[in-house]
Amino acid sequence: MTSYIGVAGASQAAASLIALAETLGRRLAEAGATVLCGGGEGVMTAVSRGAQEAGGTTVGLLPGADRSSANPYLTVALPTGLGEGRNLLLVRASDALVAVGGGFGTLSEIALALRTGVPVIGLATWGLTLASKPVTAFPVVETPEEAARLALEAARDRPAKRQ
Amino acid sequence: MTSYIGVAGASQAAASLIALAETLGRRLAEAGATVLCGGGEGVMTAVSRGAQEAGGTTVGLLPGADRSSANPYLTVALPTGLGEGRNLLLVRASDALVAVGGGFGTLSEIALALRTGVPVIGLATWGLTLASKPVTAFPVVETPEEAARLALEAARDRPAKRQ
Amino acid sequence: MTSYIGVAGASQAAASLIALAETLGRRLAEAGATVLCGGGEGVMTAVSRGAQEAGGTTVGLLPGADRSSANPYLTVALPTGLGEGRNLLLVRASDALVAVGGGFGTLSEIALALRTGVPVIGLATWGLTLASKPVTAFPVVETPEEAARLALEAARDRPAKRQ
Amino acid sequence: MTSYIGVAGASQAAASLIALAETLGRRLAEAGATVLCGGGEGVMTAVSRGAQEAGGTTVGLLPGADRSSANPYLTVALPTGLGEGRNLLLVRASDALVAVGGGFGTLSEIALALRTGVPVIGLATWGLTLASKPVTAFPVVETPEEAARLALEAARDRPAKRQ
Repeated sequence: MTSYIGVAGASQAAASLIALAETLGRRLAEAGATVLCGGGEGVMTAVSRGAQEAGGTTVGLLPGADRSSANPYLTVALPTGLGEGRNLLLVRASDALVAVGGGFGTLSEIALALRTGVPVIGLATWGLTLASKPVTAFPVVETPEEAARLALEAARDRPAKRQ
Repeated sequence: MTSYIGVAGASQAAASLIALAETLGRRLAEAGATVLCGGGEGVMTAVSRGAQEAGGTTVGLLPGADRSSANPYLTVALPTGLGEGRNLLLVRASDALVAVGGGFGTLSEIALALRTGVPVIGLATWGLTLASKPVTAFPVVETPEEAARLALEAARDRPAKRQ
Repeated sequence: MTSYIGVAGASQAAASLIALAETLGRRLAEAGATVLCGGGEGVMTAVSRGAQEAGGTTVGLLPGADRSSANPYLTVALPTGLGEGRNLLLVRASDALVAVGGGFGTLSEIALALRTGVPVIGLATWGLTLASKPVTAFPVVETPEEAARLALEAARDRPAKRQ
Repeated sequence: MTSYIGVAGASQAAASLIALAETLGRRLAEAGATVLCGGGEGVMTAVSRGAQEAGGTTVGLLPGADRSSANPYLTVALPTGLGEGRNLLLVRASDALVAVGGGFGTLSEIALALRTGVPVIGLATWGLTLASKPVTAFPVVETPEEAARLALEAARDRPAKRQ
């Protein structure tokens, strides 16, 4: 069965992040994964474009009640009408999650994934501290190639049945 | 842009309904629609199988937290972890909805579609009364071919932007 | 422990329904129940007012992201930001549900309650048919006093633990 | 109108956090606020107990489908059946949020609050970094008294109408 890899990232992002996201999408699609994201602009557009250009299947979980915010690189665009509630849907539907960049929505997806046992890979994203000391809650990588590789491995190793 | 047609129907259904659902899925896929359903057994399996065998794209919005309940005819299987909350997602993501058979989940999808302005077509499904008088809230058809035709027309006529 | 009785009803309703709902709220509160509703106008205002005037606790589960649509008779007003998704929340949080009147939102709450095993009592609300024959899926009563009585009984008999 | 203050915190927590949470609940209730939380054990029990002993109204938004996980200090216990989806509900329903301790669920509530414009006050909770540099996204305080004071101020200053 194909792996579903979620990519969390903001609608506004620096050009360097956009480039990372596009490569990430391409690599995931080349490996046969279905790529899930929020379906909007910025990181979401880039990862969708990268994946679709590599022949992959892309799914966007949109926050609004219609498809007007969908980017043009989605195989399937699903309006949820849940606002930020779609962030949890993205996490639920992903076998592993790559978090790209520093949006608060992305942070919520990291947290929900950690909470619900979805493996997270970080790429130029948030770090955490407790009592001013760094906490390593998930692996952080430097390149989209490594993010794709780790996410695909984590997805493969994840038990099929879960709560 | 492709139309997204949701098909509501129960996991346990009579053989006659199963046959209707499979033909419905085939017709929708032949017309180029993306077919959405709850992704489970019964009517959901039949409509997915019909659509996939005709080369269509099928999406299952699963109630649980993993893909163990997904039928084998889904292009994209999305666990939502929302239980019956996925019924609203199915309605939200559909440009038009075909309701097949008499489950209570199906009734909830009919009601949520009527409430949120998603066109509904009924096929061997619930009727409504108020003060013991029949209320015609949506068109009812006799064949899956006609259900597909009306749903595709309604989806085409629906405004792209909505609340 | 107190019973939680949900009341489903539309924001626009005839004066006769409003009167029924107010009496229903009063009776439920007199019996010590916590009254849940959508928190808006019409039937929701009436049932909240009746319950609050009888000294009861009232909870409104609002569809929007703020309290601007809350009626003034709520002990607790909770914006959900889920739109019609709050209908499922109302059902989930209720030990029994009284459906008043003929809105489509109310129909969705009846259906979700039937689907998830929450007892439903109907008062001047929808009836159902299948293949043109009436289906009795829940008891229908003529007076708010009887609706309150049956709902409280059903809530008391419901198992505390459920899925 | 009363302020609704959400308190995010884990079901398992050190004794020092439990003591902070109980004082926090007491202060919020003394100031007339309605206290919202996840309704479970640990920090949630402590804040509910503190608030209820001070005569306040407490609301628990439970993850499961019934009230079996509710702590005994809730005025209103609402099963949501949404699992971690209830975290977003807590944020949506709060005029301001106090985050206590270092659970991942708490981190998700911080992130969702920052994303949706709900003021956050931190008490012995997560800190954030980007590119290894600390990011101050919300005020952090040392005592529950100060947390209560800042949260109540932030709630008072928040616009009533929002998206």
